[in-house]
Amino acid sequence: MQELGKKENDMQTLMPKGFYTCVKNLGIKDETLDFTVIMSSTVANAAAMFTQSRFCGAPIPIGKKNVANGKLQCFVINSKNANVATGEEGIRNVQEIVNLVAQELAIAPENILPSSTGVIGHQLPMEKIRNGIINLKEQLVEGGLEKSAQAIMTTDTYPKCKICKVGNATLVGIAKGSGMIEPNMATMLSYFVTDAEIPAATLQTIFKEAVNQSFNMVSVDTDTSTSDTVAIMANGLAGKVDIKQFTEALNNMSIDLAKEIARDGEGATKLVEVTVNESSSFAQAKKVAKSIVNSPLVKTAIFGKDANWGRIAMAIGKCEDEVDLNPENISIYFGETLIYQGKPIDTVDLSVIQEYLENSEIQIKVSLGLGNEEATVWGCDLSYDYVKINGSYTT
Amino acid sequence: MQELGKKENDMQTLMPKGFYTCVKNLGIKDETLDFTVIMSSTVANAAAMFTQSRFCGAPIPIGKKNVANGKLQCFVINSKNANVATGEEGIRNVQEIVNLVAQELAIAPENILPSSTGVIGHQLPMEKIRNGIINLKEQLVEGGLEKSAQAIMTTDTYPKCKICKVGNATLVGIAKGSGMIEPNMATMLSYFVTDAEIPAATLQTIFKEAVNQSFNMVSVDTDTSTSDTVAIMANGLAGKVDIKQFTEALNNMSIDLAKEIARDGEGATKLVEVTVNESSSFAQAKKVAKSIVNSPLVKTAIFGKDANWGRIAMAIGKCEDEVDLNPENISIYFGETLIYQGKPIDTVDLSVIQEYLENSEIQIKVSLGLGNEEATVWGCDLSYDYVKINGSYTT
Repeated sequence: MQELGKKENDMQTLMPKGFYTCVKNLGIKDETLDFTVIMSSTVANAAAMFTQSRFCGAPIPIGKKNVANGKLQCFVINSKNANVATGEEGIRNVQEIVNLVAQELAIAPENILPSSTGVIGHQLPMEKIRNGIINLKEQLVEGGLEKSAQAIMTTDTYPKCKICKVGNATLVGIAKGSGMIEPNMATMLSYFVTDAEIPAATLQTIFKEAVNQSFNMVSVDTDTSTSDTVAIMANGLAGKVDIKQFTEALNNMSIDLAKEIARDGEGATKLVEVTVNESSSFAQAKKVAKSIVNSPLVKTAIFGKDANWGRIAMAIGKCEDEVDLNPENISIYFGETLIYQGKPIDTVDLSVIQEYLENSEIQIKVSLGLGNEEATVWGCDLSYDYVKINGSYTT
Repeated sequence: MQELGKKENDMQTLMPKGFYTCVKNLGIKDETLDFTVIMSSTVANAAAMFTQSRFCGAPIPIGKKNVANGKLQCFVINSKNANVATGEEGIRNVQEIVNLVAQELAIAPENILPSSTGVIGHQLPMEKIRNGIINLKEQLVEGGLEKSAQAIMTTDTYPKCKICKVGNATLVGIAKGSGMIEPNMATMLSYFVTDAEIPAATLQTIFKEAVNQSFNMVSVDTDTSTSDTVAIMANGLAGKVDIKQFTEALNNMSIDLAKEIARDGEGATKLVEVTVNESSSFAQAKKVAKSIVNSPLVKTAIFGKDANWGRIAMAIGKCEDEVDLNPENISIYFGETLIYQGKPIDTVDLSVIQEYLENSEIQIKVSLGLGNEEATVWGCDLSYDYVKINGSYTT
């Protein structure tokens, strides 16, 4: 992936054709940006994936229904309030927002995908939102996705926006984390737009693959959100592209954004990458890797720069259903250093690992000695700040 | 359960007949107690359950083999080193300990159940252990279980020992936590001894039931240990007892010890009890309850005394496989206060919940509106001290 300059002017010139945004503060919680609309000038081919939560947010079923035909024209997103566990009133509210935005922008409400993120269990401040939508069309600017990335933030410490060229087309992706993050079959909020021309069916296939190897491999805290949504619009204004190239760009950008989410996990001081190979299946490799990256004892050890690799052994061992796991066949590495291979490696100088743990990106590799499958997942350490942020987030 | 006095003299007089202990420091890590032997004067009926970890400690397979015939005479336990991930040498070491203890005590090695708890991945300091076993028999004292409870501690802040009478017999249970705790089909270390006469088959049945509703319902940090062991010896010296009474006493004592482990979880400031009822199955109730009690976002909210009940909704929702869960049917309570019933309860004064969260024991109740099954689990909050303790535990 060719990653382009990050200066605002660069971004602006390089934005995909025919995408307009509006970003503003509606005062939902405070004075930071909390509302954005991302619109294509024409109806675009689209794909989306959503949280599997049984307690999902009010916008989720509406988004699902609207993207079902592979067409969308607009994302409308608010932060600071998730509109979850809000009963019938919550559903009426999101429907009203979609209708008001459609009316203002003169587009079909069925082509809008709505999202909300923030605190659970509070009704949206509808008066403020209604006022914010008035004259929306006049407030649209061309491009501006990097500012949309700001408006969707909750506890993120920086906006996440990536841009790259694929042939004549451009692909932009934005995402937000940073707690309640263990996406399953979908993700936190992330939106992609491109002016490449890609058939809806193809888009759905390659998008699902990209999400499964990126966002679905991230865990900050094992807490699957009620509001996870990832969506893409391809409006075709830049014409056809090489699908293989586009797929590769989409995969790389998804992984990049997923890693950013892990790196910026609540309270995180380190990005942790866990690769499990020599596995008998991808599912087994993913399960073991997630068990390691999610273990609070592994996470705190990494935060404390403690070469306590025994906790990695524990986290492998607790995958109890994987009956073919055998400690005799297993190898464990911190970075490039082999520390266990059927038994502890006596010659390892633990101070070398201690030093390695000073890095801001930590790699753990485990070989199961069972087969040829592998999986890589991303997470972060568990710090005092995770407790601080979440001991006082709301109410 | 009649719980008896906690003064050492009381304990001593009330100990079950024919149990002897030795408790000492072998210098495995520091100068605190780290080794204990608990022996019955006669071969006792016995039952035990063990961790399901695929990376289990070297003592586990030996304990499993030795208890298989329903007979044991002795527990030998060290703390400060778990003898896990230590390869062939670790297995040879535990076998040597069992043989040395058997020789010194003039009992059969097949009647010994060995356990180790502490750091993973280091070989036991065998020279110190061999020296510690010399003349063991002369060092045995009658009773003394409450001191054994001290010797098995790692990061526990206090020893856990319960005693009660059942007819003419006495039942004593000891246990240790307090991190790497999410037992599955077995538990952290816990040992029971009684002089009641109970057939081995009956003992196994009632013991398994007791463990399943107590230790297996506890989670401090989702990290299933490599060394979980819970075992009981019944030497029969006090004669027959009413089995129903004994079962009840064993159940209550198991739950009491399990709750102590949660209350004394690493860094815990609060015991959290989660009951899920109106469930379509026990498995579903347990799954939802565990999801709540294990959620780092719920745990940090309770630590922060934050009435953020939306995180409970999130934790229910992430049980994605439970497809019959429907937010419309669900009710959520903090203590006795109903805060969600298909929608947020507008009339709830959040300051009442805030005040409730000042308590040291927090109850969360969730009704699923699906059936008649229920489950109760125990856990604790997630505090700065969990991060502190585990960011610097070893190496």
